[in-house]
Amino acid sequence: MTTISINSPADFHVHLRQGSMSALVTPHVRKGGFNLAYVMPNLNPPITTTAQALLYKAELQKIDPTVEYLMTLYLSPDITPEEIRNAKKAGIVGVKSYPRGVTTNSDGGIESYEMYYPVFEAMQEVDMVLNLHGEIPSDSNTNTHILNAEPQFLPHLHRLHAAFPSLRIVLEHATTRAAVDAVKQCGETVACTITAHHIALTVDDWAGQSWNFCKPVAKFPDDRQALRDIIREGHPRFFLGSDSAPHPPHSKSTSTPSNGCAAGIYTSPILLPLVAHLLESFGALERLQGFVSENGRAFYKREVSRDIQTTVVLRKVNAGSGIIQEAYGLGTDSVVPFWAGRKLDWEIVEGQ
Amino acid sequence: MTTISINSPADFHVHLRQGSMSALVTPHVRKGGFNLAYVMPNLNPPITTTAQALLYKAELQKIDPTVEYLMTLYLSPDITPEEIRNAKKAGIVGVKSYPRGVTTNSDGGIESYEMYYPVFEAMQEVDMVLNLHGEIPSDSNTNTHILNAEPQFLPHLHRLHAAFPSLRIVLEHATTRAAVDAVKQCGETVACTITAHHIALTVDDWAGQSWNFCKPVAKFPDDRQALRDIIREGHPRFFLGSDSAPHPPHSKSTSTPSNGCAAGIYTSPILLPLVAHLLESFGALERLQGFVSENGRAFYKREVSRDIQTTVVLRKVNAGSGIIQEAYGLGTDSVVPFWAGRKLDWEIVEGQ
Repeated sequence: MTTISINSPADFHVHLRQGSMSALVTPHVRKGGFNLAYVMPNLNPPITTTAQALLYKAELQKIDPTVEYLMTLYLSPDITPEEIRNAKKAGIVGVKSYPRGVTTNSDGGIESYEMYYPVFEAMQEVDMVLNLHGEIPSDSNTNTHILNAEPQFLPHLHRLHAAFPSLRIVLEHATTRAAVDAVKQCGETVACTITAHHIALTVDDWAGQSWNFCKPVAKFPDDRQALRDIIREGHPRFFLGSDSAPHPPHSKSTSTPSNGCAAGIYTSPILLPLVAHLLESFGALERLQGFVSENGRAFYKREVSRDIQTTVVLRKVNAGSGIIQEAYGLGTDSVVPFWAGRKLDWEIVEGQ
Repeated sequence: MTTISINSPADFHVHLRQGSMSALVTPHVRKGGFNLAYVMPNLNPPITTTAQALLYKAELQKIDPTVEYLMTLYLSPDITPEEIRNAKKAGIVGVKSYPRGVTTNSDGGIESYEMYYPVFEAMQEVDMVLNLHGEIPSDSNTNTHILNAEPQFLPHLHRLHAAFPSLRIVLEHATTRAAVDAVKQCGETVACTITAHHIALTVDDWAGQSWNFCKPVAKFPDDRQALRDIIREGHPRFFLGSDSAPHPPHSKSTSTPSNGCAAGIYTSPILLPLVAHLLESFGALERLQGFVSENGRAFYKREVSRDIQTTVVLRKVNAGSGIIQEAYGLGTDSVVPFWAGRKLDWEIVEGQ
């Protein structure tokens, strides 16, 4: 097999930023082989209203109208059940919960979810998706740190699922065997995204190497193995969400004694070839269509759009080609992709 | 108490480099309050013979004759029992073992220690010290990574101690509760050094912050607590070895996609005030004399020298002073200390 055709690749977790950086990175969704982007709301200020989300969607469509943008709201105390119903009517798909470091109303380190139960009730009723950044804040007193922050979050996932069994929940960017096991144990309404970089990296790769530093951090080899195994198994509730996150190169390359580097790995412009390369490396290439399209689209109830070109063809690269470029630029902005300078075994030949 | 007098502080693990960098950093031993330096042999090429060690010692004495330098050899297949006896006669104190990533003659990832048993036998006989970098190489296939590399080494420590019960062994720069427990369980011939930075940092501090990156990496809050507890307990077989390791600032601050930053934290010029500051922060200031002088000197059988000034006086700093300087320079070399720009509560007023 030297070519693979993938129908309607969909990235169910991506950061498209604002302003000039957005103009640079938004076209990379399509460049990386994807025609659906599930867009994260953590702008500054965050997207907390339907009006903001629609405005943001229009901006993204203006930059690249060939991609379908699914919009989300940032879970905050401002969001009411009524706003949820408005959002649903306006086509907003999900609400993203980020961990908060605050003590007030906190429950096990995370902002108490109980205060959001009326919102979740409304989301369940109108069939919106809850996207969870599944980590609790570090706390030396309880030995909570960036390597066990995700396992320690999982009881929250189980409680939410029990309280709202019909609410569709996605545990985002899972990094641990514990998270994979937890999602498997849940019912059909709970799914999980996995990034490309978390099936490539372990803790050894980001130690002293800021370009491989992201949050959640990549964990241990056994955790990476669990992510690879669930993909190879073809489990229908696990699918790609790249968490591709662009940062200015200097903020990635450089730390001062008082400021560390930015957290985030940028995969958008190379995403489909990268995922094909990685899946092939652990014997899961036959799961590519399911992992990057079918599984996520089924969970999100997003039928393949008939309006836009939907087939992307990958070809095995010839010797000497497939080198990932060092940077992408537009105006004064630039961004460095994951694995810059390394070689991928696959490239897009149609549908980009 | 606003002043503390410490008798003959001794740093039982320090990297003093070569050439112009050595000229810059060697005087920092004294500047940081210490008059004994146990000098690591990992130069390029490494110190593997008595002749090399004596030459290196002479270079250090030329730079700063007021410090007592204890010299070590780098354990390698070239070292013979005869060389050990020569080394002992020449005043060499120890032999340092570094982990090797090679497969040949490897035992659980580390170069097999059995091949060195004749050397260890000679060391035991002449009473030299074996210094162990206690980590095994990372290996994804066995889920061995930088966070469990030390616990997985500990069976080697126990085997060596059982095979050579009279051989004095130091587990260097311990970072885990498991290592502390293992050393406690051993007999009187096994001791352990602890760095200043490992009682300050955890994994969260070096994630994305290259200035806090060193090897062994700082571990979890519970591990740090074990290090702090054994110091507060005043256990006589645990003592300071700073592992202070200077690097050119650019190699610490900056990573490229193909090259990470240098591993190492530089504490020499602020060492005694830093250790006082840290011990006070967890209620162990009364253990300062034992931790930075008595315990290590007793284990190494190094009586306090009568030839050099031996008392260092620390004073609690006034508000507004005690800021750690941003860098130290000499010629074209410079080095940035740990916690640059932060404030220490103690300063040296006599004996520097």
